[in-house]
Amino acid sequence: MPNYETVPRDVVEALCVPGSYQTAVHFGRHNTPMPSLEALAEIMELLRAIVFPGYFMESDITPDNITYYTGAKLDKVLFLLTEQLKRGYCFFCETSLEQMCPTCASKPQENAYELIRALPDIRRLLALDALAAYEGDPAATRYGETVFCYPSIRVMINHRIAHQLYKTGVPLIPRMISEMAHSATGIDIHPGAQIGEKFFIDHGTGVVIGETCVIGNNVKLYQNVTLGAKSFPLDEHGNPIKGIPRHPILQDNVIVYAGATILGRVTIGAGSTVGGNVWLTKSVPPNSKITRPITEV
Amino acid sequence: MPNYETVPRDVVEALCVPGSYQTAVHFGRHNTPMPSLEALAEIMELLRAIVFPGYFMESDITPDNITYYTGAKLDKVLFLLTEQLKRGYCFFCETSLEQMCPTCASKPQENAYELIRALPDIRRLLALDALAAYEGDPAATRYGETVFCYPSIRVMINHRIAHQLYKTGVPLIPRMISEMAHSATGIDIHPGAQIGEKFFIDHGTGVVIGETCVIGNNVKLYQNVTLGAKSFPLDEHGNPIKGIPRHPILQDNVIVYAGATILGRVTIGAGSTVGGNVWLTKSVPPNSKITRPITEV
Amino acid sequence: MPNYETVPRDVVEALCVPGSYQTAVHFGRHNTPMPSLEALAEIMELLRAIVFPGYFMESDITPDNITYYTGAKLDKVLFLLTEQLKRGYCFFCETSLEQMCPTCASKPQENAYELIRALPDIRRLLALDALAAYEGDPAATRYGETVFCYPSIRVMINHRIAHQLYKTGVPLIPRMISEMAHSATGIDIHPGAQIGEKFFIDHGTGVVIGETCVIGNNVKLYQNVTLGAKSFPLDEHGNPIKGIPRHPILQDNVIVYAGATILGRVTIGAGSTVGGNVWLTKSVPPNSKITRPITEV
Amino acid sequence: MPNYETVPRDVVEALCVPGSYQTAVHFGRHNTPMPSLEALAEIMELLRAIVFPGYFMESDITPDNITYYTGAKLDKVLFLLTEQLKRGYCFFCETSLEQMCPTCASKPQENAYELIRALPDIRRLLALDALAAYEGDPAATRYGETVFCYPSIRVMINHRIAHQLYKTGVPLIPRMISEMAHSATGIDIHPGAQIGEKFFIDHGTGVVIGETCVIGNNVKLYQNVTLGAKSFPLDEHGNPIKGIPRHPILQDNVIVYAGATILGRVTIGAGSTVGGNVWLTKSVPPNSKITRPITEV
Amino acid sequence: MPNYETVPRDVVEALCVPGSYQTAVHFGRHNTPMPSLEALAEIMELLRAIVFPGYFMESDITPDNITYYTGAKLDKVLFLLTEQLKRGYCFFCETSLEQMCPTCASKPQENAYELIRALPDIRRLLALDALAAYEGDPAATRYGETVFCYPSIRVMINHRIAHQLYKTGVPLIPRMISEMAHSATGIDIHPGAQIGEKFFIDHGTGVVIGETCVIGNNVKLYQNVTLGAKSFPLDEHGNPIKGIPRHPILQDNVIVYAGATILGRVTIGAGSTVGGNVWLTKSVPPNSKITRPITEV
Amino acid sequence: MPNYETVPRDVVEALCVPGSYQTAVHFGRHNTPMPSLEALAEIMELLRAIVFPGYFMESDITPDNITYYTGAKLDKVLFLLTEQLKRGYCFFCETSLEQMCPTCASKPQENAYELIRALPDIRRLLALDALAAYEGDPAATRYGETVFCYPSIRVMINHRIAHQLYKTGVPLIPRMISEMAHSATGIDIHPGAQIGEKFFIDHGTGVVIGETCVIGNNVKLYQNVTLGAKSFPLDEHGNPIKGIPRHPILQDNVIVYAGATILGRVTIGAGSTVGGNVWLTKSVPPNSKITRPITEV
Repeated sequence: MPNYETVPRDVVEALCVPGSYQTAVHFGRHNTPMPSLEALAEIMELLRAIVFPGYFMESDITPDNITYYTGAKLDKVLFLLTEQLKRGYCFFCETSLEQMCPTCASKPQENAYELIRALPDIRRLLALDALAAYEGDPAATRYGETVFCYPSIRVMINHRIAHQLYKTGVPLIPRMISEMAHSATGIDIHPGAQIGEKFFIDHGTGVVIGETCVIGNNVKLYQNVTLGAKSFPLDEHGNPIKGIPRHPILQDNVIVYAGATILGRVTIGAGSTVGGNVWLTKSVPPNSKITRPITEV
Repeated sequence: MPNYETVPRDVVEALCVPGSYQTAVHFGRHNTPMPSLEALAEIMELLRAIVFPGYFMESDITPDNITYYTGAKLDKVLFLLTEQLKRGYCFFCETSLEQMCPTCASKPQENAYELIRALPDIRRLLALDALAAYEGDPAATRYGETVFCYPSIRVMINHRIAHQLYKTGVPLIPRMISEMAHSATGIDIHPGAQIGEKFFIDHGTGVVIGETCVIGNNVKLYQNVTLGAKSFPLDEHGNPIKGIPRHPILQDNVIVYAGATILGRVTIGAGSTVGGNVWLTKSVPPNSKITRPITEV
Repeated sequence: MPNYETVPRDVVEALCVPGSYQTAVHFGRHNTPMPSLEALAEIMELLRAIVFPGYFMESDITPDNITYYTGAKLDKVLFLLTEQLKRGYCFFCETSLEQMCPTCASKPQENAYELIRALPDIRRLLALDALAAYEGDPAATRYGETVFCYPSIRVMINHRIAHQLYKTGVPLIPRMISEMAHSATGIDIHPGAQIGEKFFIDHGTGVVIGETCVIGNNVKLYQNVTLGAKSFPLDEHGNPIKGIPRHPILQDNVIVYAGATILGRVTIGAGSTVGGNVWLTKSVPPNSKITRPITEV
Repeated sequence: MPNYETVPRDVVEALCVPGSYQTAVHFGRHNTPMPSLEALAEIMELLRAIVFPGYFMESDITPDNITYYTGAKLDKVLFLLTEQLKRGYCFFCETSLEQMCPTCASKPQENAYELIRALPDIRRLLALDALAAYEGDPAATRYGETVFCYPSIRVMINHRIAHQLYKTGVPLIPRMISEMAHSATGIDIHPGAQIGEKFFIDHGTGVVIGETCVIGNNVKLYQNVTLGAKSFPLDEHGNPIKGIPRHPILQDNVIVYAGATILGRVTIGAGSTVGGNVWLTKSVPPNSKITRPITEV
Repeated sequence: MPNYETVPRDVVEALCVPGSYQTAVHFGRHNTPMPSLEALAEIMELLRAIVFPGYFMESDITPDNITYYTGAKLDKVLFLLTEQLKRGYCFFCETSLEQMCPTCASKPQENAYELIRALPDIRRLLALDALAAYEGDPAATRYGETVFCYPSIRVMINHRIAHQLYKTGVPLIPRMISEMAHSATGIDIHPGAQIGEKFFIDHGTGVVIGETCVIGNNVKLYQNVTLGAKSFPLDEHGNPIKGIPRHPILQDNVIVYAGATILGRVTIGAGSTVGGNVWLTKSVPPNSKITRPITEV
Repeated sequence: MPNYETVPRDVVEALCVPGSYQTAVHFGRHNTPMPSLEALAEIMELLRAIVFPGYFMESDITPDNITYYTGAKLDKVLFLLTEQLKRGYCFFCETSLEQMCPTCASKPQENAYELIRALPDIRRLLALDALAAYEGDPAATRYGETVFCYPSIRVMINHRIAHQLYKTGVPLIPRMISEMAHSATGIDIHPGAQIGEKFFIDHGTGVVIGETCVIGNNVKLYQNVTLGAKSFPLDEHGNPIKGIPRHPILQDNVIVYAGATILGRVTIGAGSTVGGNVWLTKSVPPNSKITRPITEV
């Protein structure tokens, strides 16, 4: 009869004999720990408050104190983000364990700095996204309401930050930032996706936007829209070839209604409307109105 | 070469020069800070424990102590909620910055009190919702299991509270309460939606229920059901007119299966069944059975 | 005029008079409190770090210290989980309130111990799931990235633990563990579902996998896939009969694309592909390619 | 050369071989964990708010809600304290490890209940202590200020609770409650000390009041006063005999100034004053004025 | 036999019947809650970091970012402190309950502002205090070590802040700030005490410095020194008259060794030394050397 | 009239102009932040649980799991402590700001490792200290009670750890560890003090033990005992010369009663007793009984 109060020694061994865990264990590189979700959450909270002062963190923002708060938060982001980017680089590094390699030593600070420099433009885009939410949702009663509590803004703050980091080659961290928003909103935007001005997703749960999507200005999506890949070219080993453009292009002023699925490197021409539950795997010209071809009940 | 350890002063300025942030900054009114998500979470936790004593917060509820716990929690809710409602009103207030206006001064306490008075009826409805979940899900093994861990109950607690606040004209806060449940469950019910007795949503991820929906008794939905608007009448400026009835009416005993979409101010007659993935934009008479008209594979 | 600063005594009474709350109150059994979500979250965090050392909790795992950490964590899991399982059993217990019944006294420790013994095999399966994610997603750049931040791995860690507890008859707790992952990922897998090796769900939001599903090896699902029940046989009282096999069987190497719905105790033969948005309620032979029979636009 | 990144296995062994730790390890009894300082702190916070409502925890106490808050807090104290007392009893229990003995099973709840019943009298005494502080300190500007922030009140709340538990035979826990106050105030009152009405200690750091002290009404002490034992009778093994009266008796209206030391089972007669830095090991009659016999500078 | 699981209703009543609690309950004024120790701790942490940047809170202070951090912290202190001062004023207010009186409405912000304006001088004094600690303690190895971890600096930061608030008439809050430092260090300095430049207390436990003390420059105290009152003039009701000068004056360059007691409105002339355990109740001229007049062993 | 809602810009500048803060600001070295009190508290909690397993942290220690817990905790201490020691070294480092110097790079890990290796002996000493407390205090009812809640043990755990770090040359951190215990207990032991076996301090508030003290075996102190320096030799600049032996030597079996003061490099012979409030600045031979030479009242 087993002694239920004692950890079975054979189980500990089965989990720890060297052969047992080779794919399951991560041995750190450069004595650097794994990225921290808590730190990334703090960074994102700071960035949210930098972009939309008065809405997040301190409420009593005035023209007199905004410079102090913004400067202090930027400095803190620079400090915290550099550390997390370093962890991301080291996690992906393939050089020797002990010695810090030149890339892991220099790129994190450089990339963090590039994000800082991009913030004014990111703020401009996010303010327009909030405007798009306000104009596009009849249930929205104030511009500020969309900034403060719409999932579309929440996910776009993360995406526009993550996309900037993705563009400068940061590994892992952009994906983590995207997954944080995915978990909170049900909207899964790959950090690689390029998205124009005044973008709005209503409700949003179940939306998927793939890595190589290109989305123009004034585009609006509803819940459960998929902008995905159709199939993956395989390499000689039968594995999907990574990094090939394989997701849709949506030109300006496109609307895609709930549940629609658009797959592959197709182009939805400017001003087109894709109806709910539509399944679409070909390009369509500008100003198309794609609806379900089946007779409704 | 940039000095990566220093926050660039020009970025701080670009983010803070008055012209740069006009739409992105919120300047508080009446010296009142923004509503607090943490406080609303605490309020909802208290209300959940008032409605379902013994399931949430203190476990050792007895007939002897229930009055003490309920009274203390109600008092705390009254205190905390009044403060948050005040913040919600001030956020939306358009009067001068310094002076507290009469509405912001009096309505919060009045509305919080109205919620308190409505709680016995809200409790009756939620107990019936839990019963509906138990009866409607073959995987449910006990009534109490549905109270304790079903997303349908979690979202309905928030909705029935938010809806009561919505009815008394509270701004912003009802939407925040709904979004808290939306984020946790993937179920997006607008606080304006009117929902009858014994309502159950199975699984629930991706469900959207619009602001002007009217749902009868004994209605059951599955995941990814949309009860949405078809199109919005525009005003003379081309903006959607807000507040017009534009979402479906579901009469008593309607069932809507996964992925179905019902759009516009249509009426689904009592006792009808709407099949999975059905796309429906017209009213149907009572006891209809709407299925996909297409041949299955 | 009501005194808004005072909790109305009649509301307290309306919520507390014995007749008012019979279905809404849970009176504990055996003086045992309700299960704790915080404790279950801590247990899952420990188990995640046992299964994937170096990825979660301590980062500096080496062959020298792995035995210490694994042993200490297993002991802690045994201690904490036994307590939570006891709470789950007592919640469902129908014997007298005061006396601890033999089942509630002995089964929790026994079941916790059985989980511990199953962990090496659970680890093997989860390492294969991570491999499946890496191989199946062209956007995945490293094996370790899938372990660290893919929702598919997050939900499968919870599922494989919950399923083991479900198999040994534990009440309530497996469902709570599943709901924790459901809330975080939008993927709803009932703890009863049987899932083979190398299982991967891409994106995942809106996926539902029912209690009696049986899934083979190398199966891949996309977002919004439903593997559900078609209808429930009713007992003589008109209630659904619980526990009957009613969900699909997916044999090895099946792929189901986004939005597809498979309902009832049907078998999808090995190697089959079910296209996006397909609605399927019949069995199909191995190597079928089921696509939407309708003409695309 | 040692490998500094690896925990030396021989140190682990030196700390864990059975012979090494016999006096340093505590093996729990009855599967009961050690008492929790966090739980005791929570209990003391609840008791402080029961005794002085409106000063601690909820600020908005009114005649209408005080019954709810008091009842709820008392119930919570009963629940939490019973658990901690059980841990205290088990820690001291000398019976077999596995089986819960009758004392450990029944006394905790009984003692917790006795504390609850004693609270009205404890509250009366503490309100008088606060009055004594207000009357006795020229720097005190309001009665409520002494309740809210004087170390004398802080330590007496803990002492009067701990003394009640001590009287009913509770092991360990009273001492822990005393040490919590000792650490916060520098005032070390043994839970056994008997203290009358209107007791006040000004400043207080360094005060020591021994286990068998008996202190009358209207007594006032200053900082660094010691009411200690002179010497301990030894038993046949040369160990101090425990529990013999060995500390001073201070009758009503005694004042002891800073730094005075009174040792042994002596009696300081009513109305006496003991001067600063006085060293006193004999009884003195009522209304004595004991000052330093040395010539001052 | 009592039912130990039930809170006794008669105890609740005994604690809550109106007559029972008149001195023990605080009914708030102006709907304002009690001051918060947590908020004061946060304020003190901010002030500590404003005064000694780089030592507390953010470590990476540079000439480039110091203005941002200082400005943001000052703004936060102004905001938080105004609220706490308001609570202090309301606690002491004797006007009607509901209406906010003019004093409680205007003084808090005014006093907070006065503190802000005094900070440059407070910083100058504290930097000199740290220098005094470094020069005066042979065990101190660096100037920065005294800033970072000496109890003397910890208590003086609180004192110099509390004294400034005391001077502008703030009730309650200065005393709370002093007690926070008293609890942490065992050093009890009344906020009213006037203390010159380069003040140092070595070890410090048990030191008491009374409300009307006046201390010059370059004064050094050791542990257990009392600068107290000798006796209090009583008013016609036999109560001590509050606010009369009754504590010692120490002129420049005085040293007082451990355990010495100086009582009453006496003057210790500049450059004097008071030996350990000395008891002193008369003034002494400059450059006195007061030692114990008794023969040492 | 000042605008009380605005941070005055001139105050910010007064606090931040370069000249203003030269002694008050700490600019970090080697990009290394200041040591963290929170991290040191965590390290001390781990060490306490390593030394006294079952008393602190996990309660369910058994011979089967003790090795796992001890190994895991040691590894964690090694990791965390190395980081904190590095911060201590960098704080004191006088080399250039950017480049990590060889000492700061290598000593921290080496010193942390030396502490680990010393732990078995430290445990032996602390178990004897607890025994001394149990034997020496008539109010102690169990050996385990002294381990669990006596200030003497609490301060000695910190001291024996801090002293080991001090011996290997670690800067700053030993002092921080001592101050943590000083703040909690009122007992101030400099990390440099050498203390033998079976040391006990009863009550303890106000005790001071200087840097160069040497204390033998079986020594017992009471509250407010000072083992201090008499005077400091000054260097040519008039500053105290640091590091000279200047505190008392107490040989084996010495007892020092409350309030006694022993100053200078004197030797108290083995078996001596120093009475309460005694002032002693000369050496005394073994077995002396020093009492107050003054006539008692």
